[in-house]
Amino acid sequence: MSLSHAKDDILLREDKDGAVYLTLNRPDKFNTLSDAMLAALQEELDAIAADPAVRCVVIGGKGRGFCAGHDLKEMRTNPDRGYYQALFRRCGRVMQSIVELPVPVIARVQGMATAAGCQLVASCDLAIAGRSASFAVSGINVGLFCSTPAVALSRSIAPKRAFDMLVSGDFIDADTALEWGLLSGVAEDDDLDAAVADKVEQILGKSPAAVRFGKSMFHPQRQMALADAYEFAGNVMADNMMNPDAGEGIDAFLGKRRPVWEQPGH
Amino acid sequence: MSLSHAKDDILLREDKDGAVYLTLNRPDKFNTLSDAMLAALQEELDAIAADPAVRCVVIGGKGRGFCAGHDLKEMRTNPDRGYYQALFRRCGRVMQSIVELPVPVIARVQGMATAAGCQLVASCDLAIAGRSASFAVSGINVGLFCSTPAVALSRSIAPKRAFDMLVSGDFIDADTALEWGLLSGVAEDDDLDAAVADKVEQILGKSPAAVRFGKSMFHPQRQMALADAYEFAGNVMADNMMNPDAGEGIDAFLGKRRPVWEQPGH
Amino acid sequence: MSLSHAKDDILLREDKDGAVYLTLNRPDKFNTLSDAMLAALQEELDAIAADPAVRCVVIGGKGRGFCAGHDLKEMRTNPDRGYYQALFRRCGRVMQSIVELPVPVIARVQGMATAAGCQLVASCDLAIAGRSASFAVSGINVGLFCSTPAVALSRSIAPKRAFDMLVSGDFIDADTALEWGLLSGVAEDDDLDAAVADKVEQILGKSPAAVRFGKSMFHPQRQMALADAYEFAGNVMADNMMNPDAGEGIDAFLGKRRPVWEQPGH
Repeated sequence: MSLSHAKDDILLREDKDGAVYLTLNRPDKFNTLSDAMLAALQEELDAIAADPAVRCVVIGGKGRGFCAGHDLKEMRTNPDRGYYQALFRRCGRVMQSIVELPVPVIARVQGMATAAGCQLVASCDLAIAGRSASFAVSGINVGLFCSTPAVALSRSIAPKRAFDMLVSGDFIDADTALEWGLLSGVAEDDDLDAAVADKVEQILGKSPAAVRFGKSMFHPQRQMALADAYEFAGNVMADNMMNPDAGEGIDAFLGKRRPVWEQPGH
Repeated sequence: MSLSHAKDDILLREDKDGAVYLTLNRPDKFNTLSDAMLAALQEELDAIAADPAVRCVVIGGKGRGFCAGHDLKEMRTNPDRGYYQALFRRCGRVMQSIVELPVPVIARVQGMATAAGCQLVASCDLAIAGRSASFAVSGINVGLFCSTPAVALSRSIAPKRAFDMLVSGDFIDADTALEWGLLSGVAEDDDLDAAVADKVEQILGKSPAAVRFGKSMFHPQRQMALADAYEFAGNVMADNMMNPDAGEGIDAFLGKRRPVWEQPGH
Repeated sequence: MSLSHAKDDILLREDKDGAVYLTLNRPDKFNTLSDAMLAALQEELDAIAADPAVRCVVIGGKGRGFCAGHDLKEMRTNPDRGYYQALFRRCGRVMQSIVELPVPVIARVQGMATAAGCQLVASCDLAIAGRSASFAVSGINVGLFCSTPAVALSRSIAPKRAFDMLVSGDFIDADTALEWGLLSGVAEDDDLDAAVADKVEQILGKSPAAVRFGKSMFHPQRQMALADAYEFAGNVMADNMMNPDAGEGIDAFLGKRRPVWEQPGH
């Protein structure tokens, strides 16, 4: 395992067997998405996007909460429309980079995920939370409707549920988030790391190429008309079939043996 | 509280602390959306859209049922394609006016909500029903598939559930409607008004400006591609940040005191 | 009941009272969607689309499983990008023909529905499964991400659930598939045929014209912006009102008698 400390330690990065663990590390500030944190996240996501050896990403946070959204104090020291517009654009860029990343991204959620922190959960491909975790888009309580979080949230759960969370600021618990589709898994708090590790191990057991074909196809096709989506997905799948891993996987299946995938960077 | 009777009392309007309660008042006709009722609703919705003092709308119905959809008798007395086309256009206009209204709209549902009555529930931002309420898009039983209700319903719940309701005409109960996301809340019948009042009070406790920013953003961005949605939502949120309520709300939060919102019309 | 054996019996067709039962009949191959099976399905779907006497379609499979997706052995004997592209295009054509068919299509699912077999379930308007049925998009296990199945699946269930199924290859059981909206109904295994028959009978009891108006409107409007969807659906509904069945249905309702629908081909 390699361990690098990016940007004055506000974002930790660990690499292990092709999985990258990014950990928001401002626990005393509930891991808010300050300018520095957004820049550090963008830098790591860009590096991961360009690195064929990465196969899976986990985003977590240190301390008692996952992420409390934007840094309100920092925002108030810059009372300028241009600053805010640029800030939300940078934050939206981070969220879209997760969606566009060529490998799956898993949110590992403990404690509270609020506002842009809840948006971060909604933006990941998968999300696993401890049972005591809770979720809110609570900007409305400080006079700031969570508009950019609404983009991710309304693409993740049913519209009346999303709107109710946004206009009320109310928290939902992890079991409700799972039932509504905001989470893909819930574990007992003490088992959260094991549950995340199981999901990472499961993904690492698949063909790296096939996972990349899938991630690159899944989100773009959701925005297309049905006929366009089928044309696009069919072409991706034809490319996937021409990749050696598909031949190996099918041959192994037909021969009742375990497949051996080509590894990136080998 | 002010109380005005619009259009020969078929639609009641009560104003209370910035909330408008619209009540369909043809209980002997199960509050059907007759030409007159649609006109009265459109008139009130247009007035509300232009009134900066309104902060929240509740749509309910008098009597044993919420709304039974179109007035079938009236429709049969006008067997003309041009009439029907205009009728469904006017009805669709009412539904879209709810979506486009700059403040949240809550459906208060008791008894049956069928056909365009069910569409009305689906079109509201939030919907709270009494436990004995029931929901159907039952036009299929009279040879008239609920096509315009399908527009709202299929944007509210999963497609197989919507299609099954539409092709079967079957009723679902309030708990099922909540589980499927057609409702945002269910209360015991005797507690329905209290549950609606709690939700109204919660919304009235928020910044009026922030709620308007949110409502004006939520539905349009759902129809956009992800990048466009983020650009749009980010701009709305920057505007929201420049509004005095956001500064007050954040300062109050940081100072651990209650915020005091600017009130419309003051 | 008429019974015809299409294409060397790999696809059975039974006609009964306006309902067509298509049965995948390669039970020893888990009813895989081979070139021949796709061709047979397309031929029957095209014939059904052109036949005004058909009112409902059921797609099932013989043997212990519903459908195991593509024929992997056949795919491996044609290691050519052009072949794969054409194959996925033909498969996508079958799936879209189900969506575009002017009458409802019900999946009858026993045992396993995997990969393109799960896609087939997702593509149908309704789906009823036996309680022991199970569902997976398991191509990832052979190095082939289920990209074209993802098109149908991600339009049927919440995105995190779809992505998790696609990247994990994990099976979900019938009750979970119902809870997630992939199914419209679940029955005990021994009651599956009765449950499907009940749904068919229910649909056959409706106005054939109204059902066709509805099916032709439901899926296209889902892809439109809200205003366009309302304009389109309103025009379809005006046409539906001008059909004699709507007049008959409404008159029967107002007269408290049973309607008598016009039958196609009579």
